[in-house]
Amino acid sequence: MSLLDKLDAVAAARKALLPEGVDVFGIPIGQIYSATEAKIGDRRILFLGTNNYLGLTFAPECLRAAHEALESEGTGTTGSRMASGSYGGHRALEREFANFYNCLSCIVFTTGYQANLATISGLAGAGDVVLIDGDSHASIYDGCRLSGAEIIRFRHNDMTDLDKRLRRLGERSRSTLIIVEGIYSMLGDRAPLADIVRLKDAYHSTLLLDEAHSLGVLGRTGQGLVEETGLIGGVDFITGTFSKSLGGIGGYCVSNHPQLDQLRYVSRPYIFTASPSPATIASTRAALKLLHDGTGLREQLWKNAHQLYSRLQELGYQLGPEPSPIVATILDTPQQALALWNGLLEHGIYVNLMLPPAAPDGKSLVRCSVSAAHTSEQMDYAGQAFAELRGTIFQ
Amino acid sequence: MSLLDKLDAVAAARKALLPEGVDVFGIPIGQIYSATEAKIGDRRILFLGTNNYLGLTFAPECLRAAHEALESEGTGTTGSRMASGSYGGHRALEREFANFYNCLSCIVFTTGYQANLATISGLAGAGDVVLIDGDSHASIYDGCRLSGAEIIRFRHNDMTDLDKRLRRLGERSRSTLIIVEGIYSMLGDRAPLADIVRLKDAYHSTLLLDEAHSLGVLGRTGQGLVEETGLIGGVDFITGTFSKSLGGIGGYCVSNHPQLDQLRYVSRPYIFTASPSPATIASTRAALKLLHDGTGLREQLWKNAHQLYSRLQELGYQLGPEPSPIVATILDTPQQALALWNGLLEHGIYVNLMLPPAAPDGKSLVRCSVSAAHTSEQMDYAGQAFAELRGTIFQ
Repeated sequence: MSLLDKLDAVAAARKALLPEGVDVFGIPIGQIYSATEAKIGDRRILFLGTNNYLGLTFAPECLRAAHEALESEGTGTTGSRMASGSYGGHRALEREFANFYNCLSCIVFTTGYQANLATISGLAGAGDVVLIDGDSHASIYDGCRLSGAEIIRFRHNDMTDLDKRLRRLGERSRSTLIIVEGIYSMLGDRAPLADIVRLKDAYHSTLLLDEAHSLGVLGRTGQGLVEETGLIGGVDFITGTFSKSLGGIGGYCVSNHPQLDQLRYVSRPYIFTASPSPATIASTRAALKLLHDGTGLREQLWKNAHQLYSRLQELGYQLGPEPSPIVATILDTPQQALALWNGLLEHGIYVNLMLPPAAPDGKSLVRCSVSAAHTSEQMDYAGQAFAELRGTIFQ
Repeated sequence: MSLLDKLDAVAAARKALLPEGVDVFGIPIGQIYSATEAKIGDRRILFLGTNNYLGLTFAPECLRAAHEALESEGTGTTGSRMASGSYGGHRALEREFANFYNCLSCIVFTTGYQANLATISGLAGAGDVVLIDGDSHASIYDGCRLSGAEIIRFRHNDMTDLDKRLRRLGERSRSTLIIVEGIYSMLGDRAPLADIVRLKDAYHSTLLLDEAHSLGVLGRTGQGLVEETGLIGGVDFITGTFSKSLGGIGGYCVSNHPQLDQLRYVSRPYIFTASPSPATIASTRAALKLLHDGTGLREQLWKNAHQLYSRLQELGYQLGPEPSPIVATILDTPQQALALWNGLLEHGIYVNLMLPPAAPDGKSLVRCSVSAAHTSEQMDYAGQAFAELRGTIFQ
């Protein structure tokens, strides 16, 4: 079969699953009114499907910093960090992230996806083992694939399974990179970090924690699960992204191991890509300050998260195991998920839809992402819409 | 050996090669004065090592568009294209790229690196073959690795070798993706596209051309090698980047095959990454117009390229096989390359250094990148510096 024939087969399979007319997975967002409202088609809708956890995309401090960087440094660096793309802002942001985590060093990457690709493929290689949670984000899977290391999955958050697989590795556990996430993107649940650190220490492995969805969300100053649990000393490398709580685009890795800096010389997704734009670096630096000082934002975020989670739980929806800014409704069939997603859109609410195989265990998800910028009234309105749709979905 | 011990070994190897004190591969750029001048340390230097081919990073049209998008759409989309990150600008830029190439469709990606990763790993998979030029960019290698296809290299620009390898594949040539570049980043030479298209047709393969370094540089309207050769009809997929001639950050793929759009549903580096920032999309749209209308810019760029290439040739430097905006000086030893690179920096000129294994055939390169924004005087000055250093390098 030719390469193009294969893509035709993909198209046919999708067509059989999805309704005609609505491009469910590429819904065109029109005008952006604020961090929580936009125009889709000819109506004003509530954004309940972005990862704008702290609502900083229109923060005046971030906008001002981005405008200034545009004027003084231009639209792009047209160079990799290794060539001509290491501006003052890039280095400053690395120092600020290192200080934020009270860590030795930090590397900044052009996307969050590339942060995981670069860190994982820079740390592990042929002959090594990567031992990853089964619910890991695609960027973790792709980083593992790129590394050439042997990839072993353990059952999501199952410590007995992790223990068993580490034990089986014998001496190889010493060249094993364990990878987990602060908050998992599908169901919003957290990694049992204390148990993972204990196992990692017992087997002399190395631990990478991805705080993409927990940065700014967990911990007093927003470091993530490492701060919430007080376990930063037990984690070897932390990665994360600028495109969620920081409202930008890019990613980072911080560590207390001086070896982190060596990734600048060996990690291809870092070396062979242009560096982030000056405007993005500047807005991210401003956002990191707001995030650090954002105790009030985190309080509002969690208030909203608890409000929506409790309401959907009362309504009898099957949800992820614990409240978090990711409130995922689990449905048995793609048809139910599609009907709920579409019904919410008709109520003027935009959320995310995950169908198999994107969602775990063959389930379908309708996933809400809550922001500190949402009001209690907006959470109420969303709860009301879920209530009205309850009957039509499970008839 | 633990993962960290391996990185220590990398550090020791690098230390043995490179002089103490100067961080050759992470030179801190201070203030940016213009598209061609910046501050390094306490001195004003000439930028002759960026990929800012058309010098558009401070174009008023691009800056204005970026400022407006920041105000109206914020610092980031905080969502993937599939979720909430398909704004009007993203879709408009895709239409504009399709129109620019007079092609059916286009997909825009968050980095140029991810454009190749997404396109290659979306088109080819396990059981398929990717047949790539030996001098291909790292993003092509990484895309191939991610795809799971069998990777076969042919000797750089060697059509006899390409023919032989296609013939050996037998029927498998029909599910083979051939990948070449418009202008190769190391030596600045072009792919022999007419011969490649002929072979691709004869063996019923699929052809992907990466125009990263040729967009805006070759062809009457700047399409790249496809326009220069009139062979766009023979190429199946074209990828390219925003971070060189367009002065932004991101990448694209265009094609006349309707199957291109299916990559939106199967290609992980597209699906699982946040979409480009509104400011980047806006500046890139403005830059694409300037690039299309930039006949004068291209004339200046080539005038500069010829001037520098001829001067270095007269001086007896070993260069890439043909003049281009990439003017690479080939040196026999890393020590010579380091001495030349350092000497140029002492003359206030910043260029790129490539040591083995980054440069092909065990050579070391001192690579200049010429811009339309450079003046004839700046080229003269660079030529003069190369002349003065000639004796000390080859003593």
